[in-house]
Formats: sequence, C-alpha cells, structure tokens
Amino acid sequence: MIDPRVASGTRDILPALAIQRERIMRRFRETFERCGFAPIDTPVLERREVLYSKGGEEIQRQVFEVAARGQQLEESELALRFDLTVPLARFMARHVDEVGIPFRRYHIGLVYRGERAQRGRYREFYQCDFDIIGSRSAVADAEIGLVIHDGLRAVGVPGFTIRLNNRKILNGLLDGLGLTPHTAHVLRALDKLAKIGDAGVLEELQFGEAQPEPADTGRAAPTERDTATARHDRSISSAPRGVRQRVLSLEDARRVLDCVASAGAGSWSAVLDQLAGRLGSHPAAREGIENLRAVCALLRAGGVGDDAIVVQPGLARGLDYYTGIIFETMVTGHEDYGSVCSGGRYDDLAGLFTERQLPGVGASFGLDRLTQLMADAGWLEQRSTVAAILVINFQESDSDAYVGIAQELRRAEIASELYPDPRPLREQFGYASSRGHRFAVIAGPDEIASQTFALRDMATRKQQNGLPRAELVPIVTAALRA
Amino acid sequence: MIDPRVASGTRDILPALAIQRERIMRRFRETFERCGFAPIDTPVLERREVLYSKGGEEIQRQVFEVAARGQQLEESELALRFDLTVPLARFMARHVDEVGIPFRRYHIGLVYRGERAQRGRYREFYQCDFDIIGSRSAVADAEIGLVIHDGLRAVGVPGFTIRLNNRKILNGLLDGLGLTPHTAHVLRALDKLAKIGDAGVLEELQFGEAQPEPADTGRAAPTERDTATARHDRSISSAPRGVRQRVLSLEDARRVLDCVASAGAGSWSAVLDQLAGRLGSHPAAREGIENLRAVCALLRAGGVGDDAIVVQPGLARGLDYYTGIIFETMVTGHEDYGSVCSGGRYDDLAGLFTERQLPGVGASFGLDRLTQLMADAGWLEQRSTVAAILVINFQESDSDAYVGIAQELRRAEIASELYPDPRPLREQFGYASSRGHRFAVIAGPDEIASQTFALRDMATRKQQNGLPRAELVPIVTAALRA
Repeated sequence: MIDPRVASGTRDILPALAIQRERIMRRFRETFERCGFAPIDTPVLERREVLYSKGGEEIQRQVFEVAARGQQLEESELALRFDLTVPLARFMARHVDEVGIPFRRYHIGLVYRGERAQRGRYREFYQCDFDIIGSRSAVADAEIGLVIHDGLRAVGVPGFTIRLNNRKILNGLLDGLGLTPHTAHVLRALDKLAKIGDAGVLEELQFGEAQPEPADTGRAAPTERDTATARHDRSISSAPRGVRQRVLSLEDARRVLDCVASAGAGSWSAVLDQLAGRLGSHPAAREGIENLRAVCALLRAGGVGDDAIVVQPGLARGLDYYTGIIFETMVTGHEDYGSVCSGGRYDDLAGLFTERQLPGVGASFGLDRLTQLMADAGWLEQRSTVAAILVINFQESDSDAYVGIAQELRRAEIASELYPDPRPLREQFGYASSRGHRFAVIAGPDEIASQTFALRDMATRKQQNGLPRAELVPIVTAALRA
Repeated sequence: MIDPRVASGTRDILPALAIQRERIMRRFRETFERCGFAPIDTPVLERREVLYSKGGEEIQRQVFEVAARGQQLEESELALRFDLTVPLARFMARHVDEVGIPFRRYHIGLVYRGERAQRGRYREFYQCDFDIIGSRSAVADAEIGLVIHDGLRAVGVPGFTIRLNNRKILNGLLDGLGLTPHTAHVLRALDKLAKIGDAGVLEELQFGEAQPEPADTGRAAPTERDTATARHDRSISSAPRGVRQRVLSLEDARRVLDCVASAGAGSWSAVLDQLAGRLGSHPAAREGIENLRAVCALLRAGGVGDDAIVVQPGLARGLDYYTGIIFETMVTGHEDYGSVCSGGRYDDLAGLFTERQLPGVGASFGLDRLTQLMADAGWLEQRSTVAAILVINFQESDSDAYVGIAQELRRAEIASELYPDPRPLREQFGYASSRGHRFAVIAGPDEIASQTFALRDMATRKQQNGLPRAELVPIVTAALRA
C-alpha cells in the first residue's frame, strides 16, 4: 500500500472549505468583470531566465525548478512561478501590441514557494491579482480601490478599511531632511509600526536591524502567505542583514516618526490637510498628497464610505517596487490577520523585458488568508454539499421518477442531489443532515401513485406530506426562500 | 533585455480566448453544483511515489519532477500531477471517513505532461473531472450522463451525441468465443474503428499491431490533449509493441466485428435488443446490456432526447481501467475533434492506497479541446472585453461624475469600464470598437451641466443624445436588451 499523504507544505481541500473558497473566487471574478477587468492566463511553468529576473533574494532561494523525467535540472529551462506579477510583466512585453493599452486584467492562479513548511504557510497557494496597465491617472488608482471595496462587499466582509499612502510623500519628507540615502532603511523600520509601535520604530530608525529577519516578519501573518504578502516581501526580502549600528540621529528619527505616525489619526481629509501643512512645500510630497486627495474623493464618488478610507502616511509596503499610491486593506476587528488586499502603483512594469515603459497600478486579494479569516470569524456557511435538496431513493424500479424530480428542480436552478442507491430511509436522512442539505424530497411508491411528494426540512425535521407533484418547483422554491 | 517568450509547450491566453474559456468553466461549475457535485482541491505538487503508482508507461515517461532551488532531483520527493484521477484515488483513501460516501465531487485543475511539443498539444493544460464515488447503481451512471448533457447544453453546444458502451458486453462476447486472453488486443483494435473502418479493424483483429503506436493514435486528436484522452491512454499506453503476427482467426475476427459494428446502427433500444438477441445468454454480457438499458431509460427520464444517445458496442476506451459503462461524447458535425467528454465506471478506485474498495463512475470534459472546437465553429463571441459599457473620459475635473456613472451601472450588474485618461474622443471610440464594448456612455461638460448623457451604439455608430441622467440604468438596460 502507498501512503496517501500529501507532500509537505501542500494540502487537500475538502468540500466544506472548497465550496466557500470557490464562492469567494466566483464573487471576485464577478466583481472584476463588472469593473471591466478581463481574465488572462499565463503558464505556471515559466522559463527560469524570466523568473530569476525579479523578486528579492529571499524569494529567489524559494523557486522550484522542474525537469522532465530522465532529464537533469541543468538540462531544463523550467521553473514554477512564485507570483503573478513577473509573468504579467513578461506577458505585457510580449503582447502589448495585441492587447493594447489601457489594459485591465485579472488573474487567479497558483504560485509556488519552497518555504520551510510551517503552520498556515503553504508551498502552493493562490494569488488573485488585478491591474490597470498603461495609465498614470488618479482615476486608475481609484478604480483599484473600488474593486477592493466592491470585492470585499461582494464576498460578505461586513467592515474593513482601505489604508492608503503614496510613496512620494515619504520621498519628499526624506529629501527635505537630507535622508534620501536612508530611504530603504526608513521604509523597513516604518513597516514594523503596527507590530512594534512608536517606541520600537524610533529605535529601529536610529539603529537599523538588530538581527537577521526572515522575509516577512514585518507583519503578523497567522495564515498562509498570500499575494498581499507577495507584493510586500518582493522588496522587503532585499533587506540587508548585519550588526546594529546608528543610522539616523534621534532628532531625524523623531521628525520622520512624528510626520507619519501622528498624522495617522483622523479622517482622510484631515490627515491630508495636516500632511500638506507640514510637507506641502516639497514638490514630490505635494504631488503624493494631491494624488491621495483625488483618489479619496473618487472613492467617495464611487460609493465608498469615508469611514472605510484611512490615509496612513507610515504605510511602507515594499522598498523599491511601488512609486506612487500604496494600498492595504484591514478587516475591522481582525487586523491581526494583516492585509487581505494590497498593492500599489509602479512606473515601469516590464523594464526587464521591453524598452517600452508601462506604468500601472494594481493589487491582489489574499484569497487563502481571507478565506481563513472569514471561516474563523464564523462568516462562512458550514455545509459539505452544494445541493439544497436531496431526492430520496426508495426502490430501483422508481428511479425514473427520482431522476425526473431531480432534473425538474435543476432546470429551475435548484441544486439537487439524487441519492444513488435505495438505502434505508434513516441512512439517507442521516446523510442529508451531515452534509447540510436543507430539504429532502420524498417520493415513495404511495406518493408516486397519488402524484404527490413530501418535503422534509432537515433542520427542524418537520415534514409536509401530500404535496401535489405538479407543483414541485414552486413549492420547493417557496420553502427555500422561507 | 530578457526574451519574453514562454517555455516550449506552454502558452499565454489573451482576453479574447480567456473570456470564453472562463465562461465555459463557469457554466460547467454551475452545472456540477446544480447536480450536487461539490468542489475539492488537491495539490498540483504530489509525492512521486503517488504519481508513479499509476498511469501507463507512456505517461510515466512524461512526468515532470520538481526540486527546490539548490536541491538535486534525487533529494526531492516532488513531481507535477499528470491527471486528476490518481490524486482523487489518493484523496479518497485519505479522507473517505471525513467526506463519507456516496461522494460527488468535481475538480477543475492544471495537469502536466512532458510531451514533445507539437501543434495543439500543451505540456500544461486543464482537466475538468466529475465523479460519484461509492455507488454501483445505474442511477449513478445515469447522473454522469445527465451532467454531460446538461453541461454541454449550458455552454451552448447545439448538437451532440453521448456514446455509451459497457465493458461487460465485450467481456461476455469474448468469453463466449473463448477469446478472453486476447481482450487487450481486441479492445485496441476496436478502438481504431472510427479511424480505419471495418476492413482495417478486421485486419487488426487478425494480426495485431503492425508497428509501434504512440499512446493515442487510436483517435483523431487535432486539438490539445484533454482529460478525455487522459482517461483513454491511461491504459492504451500499456499496449505491447512488436512485429505483426496472427492473433485471431478470420472467423473469430468476423464474429467480433459483426457483433460490435453492425449493432452500432439504430436507436439505442434497437441496438440493445439486437445485442440481447446475440449475447443475452451470457451472464456478463446480459448484465452490461441491462445496465445500458436502465441508463438510457433514466437519461430519457432526465430530459435527454433519444437522438442524443447512441449505444456503440465497439467503444473500447481504455484497456484495463473501466469495468462497466463507458462514455464518449461527439459534437455533431465536429466528430473529427474526437470526444469532448469521456469517462466510465471503475470497480476499485483507490486500491493502491487503501484496502477499502471504492467503486465509482465519472467523466471529464476536454476543456481546451471543446473551447477550440467552439471557437473554430464560430460559436464563441469575439470580444476582448468583459464590459458592455465604456464610460468616456473628457476632463480630469469631472472624474467624480464618470466614477459615479460607472459605479451606478456596476451596482445594476452592468459591466462597465471607465477610460482612465481624458484622451481624444476618437481615440476612446476606437478603443471601444476594437475591444468590443457594445455602448459608450458619454457625459461631457454640457451633459453634466444639463444632467443628461449620450449613449453611442459602437456597432451602428448611432448616438442618442440628451438622455436623462437620472434614468441611466433603465435606459442602458433597455439598450443592452434590444
């Protein structure tokens, strides 16, 4: 006998979870398409040359290489993609003339990272990206925010905040203080704000890394790695590691922290006014502030409540990748899960593959993280079946009647399962109860003879008998709506 | 610059095709769920021990092996799955007590085969499987046929035939003729019936293989390999290769061919009557014939027209895998594409992983083949956008008005794209025409001032002006329905 276990760092998804994850994916797809984003697909198997072009050192160490059986690794050019952004860059360089710009695409697909297995982290997981390529406008930025908002509403997240920042604000601040060479250091320190607080960050700003840090300790991540993190550690992973040494003076560190931390309280317009007062004289910072003001106003025009928008000048998210707006999204009351949708704007998507400069803005939902959060929060239905109805099977000779019932319900869009064997009634009821069917449709020999059926509510165990068979669909429809 | 090409045997899917494939997948998912099949997911990365347990020699040679970067292949246990059936067997062995039986699942996922690249064949492609595990009943067999029927109807295939056979019929025939030891040889010869005709098969039956045959020359396969073929060549691939030698006498070869070929004409009930007359005295054959009679009657009860059901006693499809009913599905007028949905019944799914005997029945849609067939037949819409509406962008200062229009349409389930930049009108119209947006919603400064909008039909170039902004949704809805 062969052991039926899965490989380390991978998992089987059973129906109860798969049904919910499928439902969440469907809602995301519907949201993307409603907002004009078309699907594309690119291979999971990419040429190593493409994959090794990008991604920090940490991700590069985690690439899986692939060879056809009988080949050596060195004889093969293949590897498994680690995100959907490098493939998008390659895709755009190759197909930009065919697809044209502006180009909106979404892409839900598997990615791979050879991390050491640990709880809640998987080597194979989904990313769920959406981007607008070929525009530098605040409208494009706002559209990404609207997809985040509409997507989370569509999957049923009751409350969340979209956190916004613009890389240019911090660039302006650091430029004004003469600290531009320390940009990466400052971003890395600020990235820990939620985790280690003001005092900790003040220390970090002055002294740099105290110890080597794994790719993404910058944020709490109790669930598996998702795209949010991917877009994050793409750059964090290039963090230098070394001994503790002074970087910023206490005074400079205080200035940086004051600007980003204290400004983080209040409505988006108040925060932006405060930032404009402090940094508005610097052209880059002003540009960043005005971009956020425009985007926030457009989100409001698009129906996003002001309480769901937070301007957070300390938001760092990636060192050298994003060049404009930055997004993170926290589920209210579940901030410890980290961001469930993150992204931002980049000036030059595909510079490694083409001379054509392609600006863009995008984000991705952390599908597995969000699914886990919603499951933990009790927001997901617990059913192991997709079918509302179980059609009971009494005897083989009446199979045609059962099939007729099931198909009539299905044609009316009522998901129905037919029990395949004439097992004892108790056994079939037990099956329906454990799976989560809402009703059993019962048509035994007597019912068939009298052209009736019975409907049993599996939760209450109440059963209505003698219902007219001719009214099967309206009766079941009404029962499901009740 | 890095060359943005894809690896040999893989491909990018652009929106025009991805939109259609996504739509087909959605319809299949809806059909599966309406029929009570729940999704599951298993890893693409499986342990080699699991994958090397099954599949013919031909498939085994094509497995891709995987190792984390820096590892040697020998240090890793990982490989990429080549179908969804071996993973299902492993899944059931591991989780049967959790999921219970009967168990209906569907699974749409990527699989990998390291074939030599050739036109229309890919190394990475989708399979789209559905199975009922844990029942031996004709009801379960019929439910699989109903999913095939309802699924193809749902995706818009205008005409097709579901071809049925039962392995027991041929077993009975061969047993009656004392030819059981030649079963594999006979199946392999019969598998070529559609390709080489009666005379060719008569020759094959007598003399066996004239030359080495690749895994699936048994059928025309102008498009990429799909699950249908997978379920097929799992067993065909174990075909012996050798020099030409006599196997059956001319008389025996004629008997076999007469029985399976001539019976293939006529309605299912006529064919079954004819088979019963010839073979009904053999218990195994009778069992197979009665199974098909029951299944055909249930398909009829489920709304499948008699003209869509063909009993085809020559249908071989796999040598040692299927043990009962066998399915193939041909699109009318496009039979040269081969089967677009195939499958059958197996007595013991997971025997390699568990002592528990798990019978089942299932099939899979050849997603890529079907998409290609439908595209070639002109049955797919040719649009590169998912959005019916393009909202025109005149000037940055009115962006909030455009966002308001787009979001109002989206909330009414009308997919709408907002052009992100205030480019010349002609350019935006050109964009809409080339992408396939059906209408442009135009709200320039004058329209905004007068609380109106204009609606331009991109196909006819007719434009309605001065429409009341307050009636945006009903007006656009009506225009889309017209």
